[in-house]
Amino acid sequence: MIEFVKGTIDYVSPQYIVIENGGIGYQIFTPNPFIYKERSQETIFTYHHIREDAFSLYGFSTREEKALFTKLLNVTGIGPKGALAILGSGDPGAVIQAIENEDEAFLVKFPGVGKKTARQIILDLKGKLADVVPEMIENLFNHEERLEKQTAETALEEALEALRVLGYAEKEIKKVLPHLKEEIGLTTDQYVKKALQKLLK
Amino acid sequence: MIEFVKGTIDYVSPQYIVIENGGIGYQIFTPNPFIYKERSQETIFTYHHIREDAFSLYGFSTREEKALFTKLLNVTGIGPKGALAILGSGDPGAVIQAIENEDEAFLVKFPGVGKKTARQIILDLKGKLADVVPEMIENLFNHEERLEKQTAETALEEALEALRVLGYAEKEIKKVLPHLKEEIGLTTDQYVKKALQKLLK
Amino acid sequence: MIEFVKGTIDYVSPQYIVIENGGIGYQIFTPNPFIYKERSQETIFTYHHIREDAFSLYGFSTREEKALFTKLLNVTGIGPKGALAILGSGDPGAVIQAIENEDEAFLVKFPGVGKKTARQIILDLKGKLADVVPEMIENLFNHEERLEKQTAETALEEALEALRVLGYAEKEIKKVLPHLKEEIGLTTDQYVKKALQKLLK
Amino acid sequence: MIEFVKGTIDYVSPQYIVIENGGIGYQIFTPNPFIYKERSQETIFTYHHIREDAFSLYGFSTREEKALFTKLLNVTGIGPKGALAILGSGDPGAVIQAIENEDEAFLVKFPGVGKKTARQIILDLKGKLADVVPEMIENLFNHEERLEKQTAETALEEALEALRVLGYAEKEIKKVLPHLKEEIGLTTDQYVKKALQKLLK
Repeated sequence: MIEFVKGTIDYVSPQYIVIENGGIGYQIFTPNPFIYKERSQETIFTYHHIREDAFSLYGFSTREEKALFTKLLNVTGIGPKGALAILGSGDPGAVIQAIENEDEAFLVKFPGVGKKTARQIILDLKGKLADVVPEMIENLFNHEERLEKQTAETALEEALEALRVLGYAEKEIKKVLPHLKEEIGLTTDQYVKKALQKLLK
Repeated sequence: MIEFVKGTIDYVSPQYIVIENGGIGYQIFTPNPFIYKERSQETIFTYHHIREDAFSLYGFSTREEKALFTKLLNVTGIGPKGALAILGSGDPGAVIQAIENEDEAFLVKFPGVGKKTARQIILDLKGKLADVVPEMIENLFNHEERLEKQTAETALEEALEALRVLGYAEKEIKKVLPHLKEEIGLTTDQYVKKALQKLLK
Repeated sequence: MIEFVKGTIDYVSPQYIVIENGGIGYQIFTPNPFIYKERSQETIFTYHHIREDAFSLYGFSTREEKALFTKLLNVTGIGPKGALAILGSGDPGAVIQAIENEDEAFLVKFPGVGKKTARQIILDLKGKLADVVPEMIENLFNHEERLEKQTAETALEEALEALRVLGYAEKEIKKVLPHLKEEIGLTTDQYVKKALQKLLK
Repeated sequence: MIEFVKGTIDYVSPQYIVIENGGIGYQIFTPNPFIYKERSQETIFTYHHIREDAFSLYGFSTREEKALFTKLLNVTGIGPKGALAILGSGDPGAVIQAIENEDEAFLVKFPGVGKKTARQIILDLKGKLADVVPEMIENLFNHEERLEKQTAETALEEALEALRVLGYAEKEIKKVLPHLKEEIGLTTDQYVKKALQKLLK
């Protein structure tokens, strides 16, 4: 529910940092707390972790790093602490590279990651980190995916993604795609509306 | 608990938007994220969805759209994602019209809505959407309901509704109604007090 | 956790009101929503009700009314809706008077309160509403209790209550009471410290 | 999640205090509410206690007092109320001294602490309160621990602690320690980065 907190770093400890916003101190667990300096202004992108007996905020300096954390969390065998340790390497690009290159030897160096979990990470995430990769590590991906990623920024691709999120099946989307491709220069919202008109006709 | 969030749209993605209020970014799932533009000022009416392992905010541009979402959620077989997809059509009036006219063929076009769920929607919601309908779609309702809806705005009708919410049975309310009708020009609060005096005598 | 919300009334409906604080709209269920006027400034004292699938705020215009709601909630057979209906009478004094005078006939008039619940209310709450009673209804209590209630405001009584809250048994408190009574004009905090010195000696 | 609340004390009662921040009143249970004066400005360090049917804030005037409360909570047989009663003595130093000196007779004086719980407190916490001790009670510890505690403030020690939090085993940390000790005047963050390079080589 809470996606970021802007404020002043009030306290840094090995376990967590505290950021103040409007007189409230938020406790946030981060991969490496010591990259933050007390009294500095920061925006921390947060993953709001809810359990029956604890609410915790896990924090990251970029949305991409948070997206990678969220993807790691969905891998069987990896909890918040394990995902934090992997990101604690401070080099998300190296982690993504190891996953794309199926480099188990690198992944097992992380605390709590054995052979089985390393294989599970590769199985679950290889090829699915395009939207997580910060722009500067594009060369990690083979040529076609990078081309496909470039078009991802276009309004049409965003609209198709929005339709997928709404639950429309690929085959339904494929049926309306030709009509959408005839249109030029629409905004994402206009593409979505155009598609829905066809889908709900 | 959180009924709306006022702020600046910080981020728009196919899955959700992020709205900033007082330095806190709130992640909100909406039917069509791309109707919102980054850096625009908005008021998003929110449905606060609580589960054991996640708190989510579902957001809408009007209270009526949110009320329709809430009513859809109460239909067996429809969860937040399904209700969001139905509202994703961007035309709540068309959805209400389909329900009032028992138009199953229209409803089954929505992702995740088969024949059984379409019938359940009609069974549960037909005739019960008067308070949800934005003023501009009044002609959807037959003559008597529209008259009844017009009086709904009067203080007396609001007072009767408040008594129902407090749990007073229809037959108890009917007993005090004649006394209330003798009164002229009372505010809703005065009608409620007058009725309670009779009910608790 | 949230004990009051100060802000502007944004919306009043038969079911609930919405109060805006810092751009966030809080949905609050109150005994009689229509005592509030849109755009008026209010302080609403809230009972934060937590269930596995819903967080709700129940709101009252005074701490005493909220205290009475909380006490009613602890009576077997009464949930938030029932307690709200009892307070919906808009006359907490009459409710307290009925409890003190064991007036079952009055209590059963409330929606959802049958003979059994009425007797349970009297059994659980009679004689235990001194701290709830707003000053103006003091005559509800017999002479000794009113005297005792007057001393309740004194620092000593508050200190004894604080020790009870910390878990000290009556017999331990009785042992230190003579020493405390020898002291004159201490603040509540000083009485507590004096007592703890004796208790932890 | 909420680590502190800054604001104005609005209400003090034997059970809890209410502190106002931005028009919201936060209810906080504290060891001795009467040390706070209404209308005074305070920063209360909070322990956010989450249960299925209640969220509560337990509050303290220093981070050390809150750390001691958190450690007491982890002792089998001690809940928030019991830990609050122990801190209610208003003298955390005396409590720590009793634990370090295995002074059961002192500990059993606290409400709800019998022989068994007193022994459990000593078993679980003796020697593990170095990071909790406010600077002014250093003499509670024997000479070596105090020396070790002085170096704790240095960047290297903080970095080693950060690696432990990330899950690296002592034997892995011991392997990289000699390399780190060759470095002079690094910040904690630089030590962490240097260590991770070695660990992930």
